[in-house]
Amino acid sequence: MSRPNPVPVRTDAPLATRFAVVRALTEALAAPLSEADATLQSMEDASPAKWHLAHVTWFWETFLLRDHLDGYKLYDERWPFVFNSYYEAEGERIARFSRGMLSRPTVADILDWRAHVDAAMEPLFEREELAPLIELGFSHEQQHQELLLTDIKHALFQNPLGPAMWDKKTPQAQVQADDWHSHPGGIARIGHQEAGFAFDNEGPAHRVLLEPFALSSRLVTNREWAEFIADGGYETASLWLSDGWAWVNDNNIRAPLYWHEDQHFTHSGWQARDAHAPVTHLSYFEADAFASWAGHRLPTEFEWEAIARGQEGEAVAHDPAGGNQLDEAAPPLPVGGDSLFGDCWQFTRSAYLPYPRFQPAEGAVGEYNGKFMSGQFVLKGASCATARGHSRASYRNFFYPHQRWQFTGVRLAKDI
Amino acid sequence: MSRPNPVPVRTDAPLATRFAVVRALTEALAAPLSEADATLQSMEDASPAKWHLAHVTWFWETFLLRDHLDGYKLYDERWPFVFNSYYEAEGERIARFSRGMLSRPTVADILDWRAHVDAAMEPLFEREELAPLIELGFSHEQQHQELLLTDIKHALFQNPLGPAMWDKKTPQAQVQADDWHSHPGGIARIGHQEAGFAFDNEGPAHRVLLEPFALSSRLVTNREWAEFIADGGYETASLWLSDGWAWVNDNNIRAPLYWHEDQHFTHSGWQARDAHAPVTHLSYFEADAFASWAGHRLPTEFEWEAIARGQEGEAVAHDPAGGNQLDEAAPPLPVGGDSLFGDCWQFTRSAYLPYPRFQPAEGAVGEYNGKFMSGQFVLKGASCATARGHSRASYRNFFYPHQRWQFTGVRLAKDI
Amino acid sequence: MSRPNPVPVRTDAPLATRFAVVRALTEALAAPLSEADATLQSMEDASPAKWHLAHVTWFWETFLLRDHLDGYKLYDERWPFVFNSYYEAEGERIARFSRGMLSRPTVADILDWRAHVDAAMEPLFEREELAPLIELGFSHEQQHQELLLTDIKHALFQNPLGPAMWDKKTPQAQVQADDWHSHPGGIARIGHQEAGFAFDNEGPAHRVLLEPFALSSRLVTNREWAEFIADGGYETASLWLSDGWAWVNDNNIRAPLYWHEDQHFTHSGWQARDAHAPVTHLSYFEADAFASWAGHRLPTEFEWEAIARGQEGEAVAHDPAGGNQLDEAAPPLPVGGDSLFGDCWQFTRSAYLPYPRFQPAEGAVGEYNGKFMSGQFVLKGASCATARGHSRASYRNFFYPHQRWQFTGVRLAKDI
Amino acid sequence: MSRPNPVPVRTDAPLATRFAVVRALTEALAAPLSEADATLQSMEDASPAKWHLAHVTWFWETFLLRDHLDGYKLYDERWPFVFNSYYEAEGERIARFSRGMLSRPTVADILDWRAHVDAAMEPLFEREELAPLIELGFSHEQQHQELLLTDIKHALFQNPLGPAMWDKKTPQAQVQADDWHSHPGGIARIGHQEAGFAFDNEGPAHRVLLEPFALSSRLVTNREWAEFIADGGYETASLWLSDGWAWVNDNNIRAPLYWHEDQHFTHSGWQARDAHAPVTHLSYFEADAFASWAGHRLPTEFEWEAIARGQEGEAVAHDPAGGNQLDEAAPPLPVGGDSLFGDCWQFTRSAYLPYPRFQPAEGAVGEYNGKFMSGQFVLKGASCATARGHSRASYRNFFYPHQRWQFTGVRLAKDI
Repeated sequence: MSRPNPVPVRTDAPLATRFAVVRALTEALAAPLSEADATLQSMEDASPAKWHLAHVTWFWETFLLRDHLDGYKLYDERWPFVFNSYYEAEGERIARFSRGMLSRPTVADILDWRAHVDAAMEPLFEREELAPLIELGFSHEQQHQELLLTDIKHALFQNPLGPAMWDKKTPQAQVQADDWHSHPGGIARIGHQEAGFAFDNEGPAHRVLLEPFALSSRLVTNREWAEFIADGGYETASLWLSDGWAWVNDNNIRAPLYWHEDQHFTHSGWQARDAHAPVTHLSYFEADAFASWAGHRLPTEFEWEAIARGQEGEAVAHDPAGGNQLDEAAPPLPVGGDSLFGDCWQFTRSAYLPYPRFQPAEGAVGEYNGKFMSGQFVLKGASCATARGHSRASYRNFFYPHQRWQFTGVRLAKDI
Repeated sequence: MSRPNPVPVRTDAPLATRFAVVRALTEALAAPLSEADATLQSMEDASPAKWHLAHVTWFWETFLLRDHLDGYKLYDERWPFVFNSYYEAEGERIARFSRGMLSRPTVADILDWRAHVDAAMEPLFEREELAPLIELGFSHEQQHQELLLTDIKHALFQNPLGPAMWDKKTPQAQVQADDWHSHPGGIARIGHQEAGFAFDNEGPAHRVLLEPFALSSRLVTNREWAEFIADGGYETASLWLSDGWAWVNDNNIRAPLYWHEDQHFTHSGWQARDAHAPVTHLSYFEADAFASWAGHRLPTEFEWEAIARGQEGEAVAHDPAGGNQLDEAAPPLPVGGDSLFGDCWQFTRSAYLPYPRFQPAEGAVGEYNGKFMSGQFVLKGASCATARGHSRASYRNFFYPHQRWQFTGVRLAKDI
Repeated sequence: MSRPNPVPVRTDAPLATRFAVVRALTEALAAPLSEADATLQSMEDASPAKWHLAHVTWFWETFLLRDHLDGYKLYDERWPFVFNSYYEAEGERIARFSRGMLSRPTVADILDWRAHVDAAMEPLFEREELAPLIELGFSHEQQHQELLLTDIKHALFQNPLGPAMWDKKTPQAQVQADDWHSHPGGIARIGHQEAGFAFDNEGPAHRVLLEPFALSSRLVTNREWAEFIADGGYETASLWLSDGWAWVNDNNIRAPLYWHEDQHFTHSGWQARDAHAPVTHLSYFEADAFASWAGHRLPTEFEWEAIARGQEGEAVAHDPAGGNQLDEAAPPLPVGGDSLFGDCWQFTRSAYLPYPRFQPAEGAVGEYNGKFMSGQFVLKGASCATARGHSRASYRNFFYPHQRWQFTGVRLAKDI
Repeated sequence: MSRPNPVPVRTDAPLATRFAVVRALTEALAAPLSEADATLQSMEDASPAKWHLAHVTWFWETFLLRDHLDGYKLYDERWPFVFNSYYEAEGERIARFSRGMLSRPTVADILDWRAHVDAAMEPLFEREELAPLIELGFSHEQQHQELLLTDIKHALFQNPLGPAMWDKKTPQAQVQADDWHSHPGGIARIGHQEAGFAFDNEGPAHRVLLEPFALSSRLVTNREWAEFIADGGYETASLWLSDGWAWVNDNNIRAPLYWHEDQHFTHSGWQARDAHAPVTHLSYFEADAFASWAGHRLPTEFEWEAIARGQEGEAVAHDPAGGNQLDEAAPPLPVGGDSLFGDCWQFTRSAYLPYPRFQPAEGAVGEYNGKFMSGQFVLKGASCATARGHSRASYRNFFYPHQRWQFTGVRLAKDI
């Protein structure tokens, strides 16, 4: 089976149309998986594909149908317990590490539920006051599309037989020039400030003061990472954060997550690595150590966003055909293109903290993004697994510094 | 789906016939399971149903076909790595706790392998020198039939939705009289001493000296266990072994494994408990504490076997229709019948140690039963999930004192 | 025995004089401890008092005597292995959690070493080029004075008999008015920018942009914390960071570290809590949850520093007699005084990250403060256990969000 | 300081005299230790020397003075909480792993307590009905003398500086002939059956049936162990019990506990190993693997005892000057002498289980030896650290199969 081609859809299409497209893509992504594939949970951080199919449906059923459709009855009253993720306000739920024990309900059961919920949603698309919540639902489901892909990759990787999920071949990456985007410093306006949807953690928009700096025009490549390894990068304490050095040694880390000899594991099974493609599946610790080794540093989230918005107050245009694969409306971009978006998430050295005057939304939905604020770092950009609509300058992704099962990479910065 | 009725077969039937019956029963037991059910691994002690289907096939392919059929080619050279269990002599293998990550090969793939191996076995049944190894293969596969049932029970139990595997109803248990089998003591001959198959750990036969004792004619019941709980059994330190008391408190143990309020979890989902049925799914620690509470003790394996063989040197006849459900030739026995076999495994106070002059067999097959000899206790009898052919006086089952996912119960003993 | 009164000394005194005073205070602080007290290590985060006595001596011997005094021979060549703390560049060293196993060398052995090193230092005080390194040595030893006090408090707390180290009584705290220091926002200059010593992590000085805010003029008190508890603060998920909520539940946290009923553990043993004294020994998680409960928030490190430097560009004078107890030159300040310094360290919501253009120093000394930059939060101010000379606006202390054995407290902030 | 020479005393001396001798020896053993040495706890299995000094005193104060001396007041009512070991019936007590946090009370405080208890005991020696309990107290304190020595050895070993506790030199061991004690098999009477004191776990005496066997006349030596290592013993899975193989690999075990290159750690610090001296500080797993490698096996506890009592019903005289170092009445025996007692404890393959008809004593004292009966193995003989009075054929020591901080060694057996 080959990887699904997303159906193009414009963000100004009717809500009902967009809903159909988003929902269909989730199912298309899971389609190549067997019942057993879809049930695997390889670690506490990851969830089964089937669980993702169900959880996003729980979101629509709970926050739209249950809360806003008179007389709606839950499809199965026992399911919220198993398909709520982390919303404390929504009550007790299954221990996270037990999601992989859910052989029942089956994928077919969940697809039936999805169809039921999809049909029930119909009347809500016309209620204007619900549009923001429905927009949130789109973004939520799209985030889980990305997680579905990264989680199943991690699960299939555990299998010594190295199974492939599809047979899509990645085009050869082009060598990129070694350029830098310079910024003169000054006050920049950061955070969500345009029309259109954004998560609550992208605001409020506010000003920050930047010193002069430059951001690399390209991502660090597999070849460069191999040089880092060959130069003893993983054995040199002085390159690493103290916590990172402990992590490297406690876990005997010697390469990015999916590397083995000159191959790396992909959704299409084990493949030869492309020297000129961006290196991916790194921890923050590794990204930071590489930057030290290279004599540069990681950017702050503000520097990255300032460049993305355009130097000196003007937004840098990023390739409108951004290379992400889940895109709603565009063809894939050549890997390694000079774009801030679409190859992999890029670590910044900014701790994930609320912006000034941030207030979480009221109620359970407020737990969506207003929760995880300790010890994580902000990532910018978007990966090949990210939905196109999520490629925006203000988007803040966030992970713990040891996590690396996402498509995470490195873009260097330097003081000037 | 209802539980499979084992096809009757006599142990003096031709090997090929017996092979076909054993192999068919394994598949019949797994038949009610979905692809996802069959892939679940709920703890390191347990294995996926699919893995059992494959591992027993690996056994036939390795120790019969590969070792004894000229020109046989492995069906898939990569599979021994994932389907070897613990045979060090057979090389590296997958970490035990990763068996649950094997969504591939699929159940269908493994059934194909089974068919291939079954066909290839044909010429070996006529080679007399292989008969003992083939007998071992039967017993091996039958042990895994029992594990398949206990492992999937444990896996389904993790699901908060409490799914059922089949809808078989258990007949109401009869109240049993409170009788004791007395034994005058003296020298008893212990261990495998008849014709017919036995595992190597059942021998060599040897003499032991017994003091006068009595063994209860029945198993401890759910009602009695409820009294133990009501009397504060789980809160009374003096009843417990030191290690047991630590285990109770560290794990907050307050009832047998599958109890919840007045129900217990079964292959048919949550069911009301039958007060007069034998209590099952206990640890050695619990069995020992109960015996202390009851003012009695657990039997030694020698006492149990002496009774099973008949007091004063004559074997006690155990019900030939023994209640085990996987039996090759007999109808189910009423639960709670006055039999030493067929309801549940019975803990003895005997540590699992080799018998005098025991020597493990040479080669990888020698690892079969000559390995686990530290800290485990011997269990006698057979459970409702044990193959009939395994109901013999010399059979030695063995588990760690904290394990309780097998059908384990209590039969009391006392000094007289 | 009562607590030592620090000998007053001015920072413009000769280096030799200051050295003598600092060294003497370390020994005075350890004087009330028995040989066994001084050897205790209660957790990996803490070190034995004896180890602190030795480690600071190792610092002088290594970075001053060995590196700068011709012909100096190490007092004992085996000791660097056990008294190096975390300097990778200085080679292998004892596992951190094994420091508590060092019954030998004895305290007397180490005091001999101290005397030897003190004498050997004599000629170095006149070498001007070494003055900055000697200044660093003062600050280093003073930091360990504080750790010595917080570590031994934690160790003595483990003893069910609640031993006291001395019998100093704390004066009754005064009720403080509920005032706020307002700041209009704008560009503030942050980081070390005056003459005098600072750690490398306090620079480079740089500008940040602040929004209008206010900082409380006082610390949160024991009485307020008791109200938070009574109001179910520790049981209300919505008040807590996600990681904090997990920490509270995993560790069954229900009060600050040293609280028990209406008492708290101190260096003088168990004492009644003073309702109006600042609450101390909190984690970042607790501080943040309290701020949410109070309807306010924690300040950023920049806000705190801006107020400390004076609103609108003018430094707020903090009480020159700052309440810290290890002070080189001043009598104790009344507890709870309107001061930013001297009662307890105050959590900010700022992650501990390097300032723009920060470069760690070369060599092993560069590991001093340029290491711990992941997942920690900045604390400002100084505690009752901090040396006076460390009470400066730019000082950055840093701990993980779960740690609370330091004298940590809360000062609230709000947007205006 | 050199090791104390035990004062000779006969077991038919008056109780008061024996009490004085036992109590004095405990203090003499602890005398070389500093306050800090005596407070060290290196692992949960071990206790501080000071704690042993106190715990044995708690035993006398609790079970003799409190229970049997009218009007006796506890010396300190808070101390039972910290100095009770594991007697559940005596109430709550300090967590075992926190014993190392007891810097207070000091050694001097405890010596005062000891003197107070010693004086208070005076009137009880004349009360005949208390003699058995006083005898138990002697044996209890002597067991803790051995633990004091093995625990402090383990604690000092943690120190990278390798401190010595005294400077006693061990005489060179003699080469021993390779003889075997043969036994024709038959019924042997096992367990305590003479006059004199024995622990309750040594009875009831009972008969066992033995097969013909032989027991080596000597212990396995350091030289033989070096050959086992050189032959890849620690890397050969087939030699090991399954649990043992896991233990070896999980803990990277490659030699006996205190070995390093050609030295081993002793109470006198690091010393060259004597090739002909018995190898010590082994786990059961190692002992069993060695026996497999040597083509022999470990004896059962019954075989060992039968030889110790004399072949064919007559007790084998063991050297009356048995080599144990804590002996009440005898000079040291040359190391490696042909004796069953005095060099090191010898693992048997017998699980530590109660003897037939065993009943624990009533009350808290019944917890003394009637508790630890799961997963441990019986050791026979006595070590160089065992009190002479404990060298008896029926004595049963017991440890978990991974423990090796006692003086444990190997004596081989074989079938004949």
